[in-house]
Amino acid sequence: MSAFAEATAVRAAGGSSYAVSVDPAWSIAGVPNGGYLMALLIRAALDAAGVPDPLAVSAHFTRPPSFGPAEIQVERVKSGRQTSALRASLWQADSVRLDTLITAGTLPDHDAGVGWNDHPMPTIPPPEDCAPNDRGPFQVALLDMVEERLDPATVPFERTSDGGVTTAPGGEPVLRGWLRLADGTDPDPLFVALAVDAMPPTVFNLGHFGWAPTVELTVLLRGRPAPGWLLCESRTHYLAGGWFDEECTAWDSTGRVVAQSRQLALLGTR
Amino acid sequence: MSAFAEATAVRAAGGSSYAVSVDPAWSIAGVPNGGYLMALLIRAALDAAGVPDPLAVSAHFTRPPSFGPAEIQVERVKSGRQTSALRASLWQADSVRLDTLITAGTLPDHDAGVGWNDHPMPTIPPPEDCAPNDRGPFQVALLDMVEERLDPATVPFERTSDGGVTTAPGGEPVLRGWLRLADGTDPDPLFVALAVDAMPPTVFNLGHFGWAPTVELTVLLRGRPAPGWLLCESRTHYLAGGWFDEECTAWDSTGRVVAQSRQLALLGTR
Repeated sequence: MSAFAEATAVRAAGGSSYAVSVDPAWSIAGVPNGGYLMALLIRAALDAAGVPDPLAVSAHFTRPPSFGPAEIQVERVKSGRQTSALRASLWQADSVRLDTLITAGTLPDHDAGVGWNDHPMPTIPPPEDCAPNDRGPFQVALLDMVEERLDPATVPFERTSDGGVTTAPGGEPVLRGWLRLADGTDPDPLFVALAVDAMPPTVFNLGHFGWAPTVELTVLLRGRPAPGWLLCESRTHYLAGGWFDEECTAWDSTGRVVAQSRQLALLGTR
Repeated sequence: MSAFAEATAVRAAGGSSYAVSVDPAWSIAGVPNGGYLMALLIRAALDAAGVPDPLAVSAHFTRPPSFGPAEIQVERVKSGRQTSALRASLWQADSVRLDTLITAGTLPDHDAGVGWNDHPMPTIPPPEDCAPNDRGPFQVALLDMVEERLDPATVPFERTSDGGVTTAPGGEPVLRGWLRLADGTDPDPLFVALAVDAMPPTVFNLGHFGWAPTVELTVLLRGRPAPGWLLCESRTHYLAGGWFDEECTAWDSTGRVVAQSRQLALLGTR
């Protein structure tokens, strides 16, 4: 079993409840990664619905969870021929830590006809020419589990002459990078849902290096990923009054779009 | 009371329940407009939370509702200093017709500092130079309530020499237009949530003139709209296996971004 499958395993606990454990290995600065938490909830929802794939996942982040045991409550809202709709909520200590609505079904085949695409895969240096797992001065446990190779043109950090590392905002809130599971497991749609939230915040490139909590994140899964690296590009369009959006598009190793996400986040201090 | 406020009125019906009526005036081809339904649910959620504004609304469309009486059930998931989280669901005949998660709070003031904006308001002809309420051969009751003036460059219809109208896909899945309430009421964030789903489907411009049901729609509200017209631009990035995204950005009359939405929809036949 891959480390990712193990960390997102869910155990039916009677009724519509699943027992899970929030694994500290999939965290950033001591806080569980939002994409990892979404993957946990998707796993439970798919099990309850008995369908193979997430199609649209809307996550509202209510309170950061702690590491360790948690409960996922799944409600089946609709079971349809083409799509099923569910609500899945992560509970700890009698409060909801993450609330999701999930529409699930079957993703288009990899050879499904493409009728329009204005999201061609960006051209960036190959993984071997990108700096591995570059997070500058920040502690990111997640990078032991997810291998990240950021496009040097978008990395918001730089090496100093004494061999250290410092923050270096590039000026444009864009990041691009290659992502894959560190243990070599090929991507599935759940890993894609994690990947769209795994790169550093785009606002680092505007000089905002504080904590930037996600309030809402919706990911649309658009295809089943081929084996190999994912390429992700995230971008902020509008930052006002402390609130910003962060869009992410993910392509698989064949250049197919496999996900589009957008989140609403808040410049924070922490 | 404006026609929009009246059509989205909610009446507390005990506990966390609200009684509403789905008004046929806000429909397209005999089906209630999705943005109108979202506005109904937002109204109930804001009342339950006691906060002024929606910030992020994620809607999963499960079954088309009928016109007439319906019930909205609201669950308060989190009440926070900065944000509150709610779930609001529209019920008819013992089934959920539309399910939403809503994060609510207070929108940034109109003079809040803008730290980044790569969504400048597009330049299109002024409303008086756009064709009013142009829906070609389609019946759209909503257009008696919402005045729409589409950018002639993006209208997927054209006049014929005998004075009729026909479909005329432009080739690029983009629409731009001015929108306002027909009775002259100035926009509020609820009308903005309606507006992002009120123009013809982008895929009309690719020649797909069938019904295109929305499966999921998330709207991020980014500011309180100034009085006057809204300008909306919707665009599809990727269509594969019958599934397509449709993004919409809305600006107020001063050029401020007031919303960003994205939906997942399905090419359908009907």
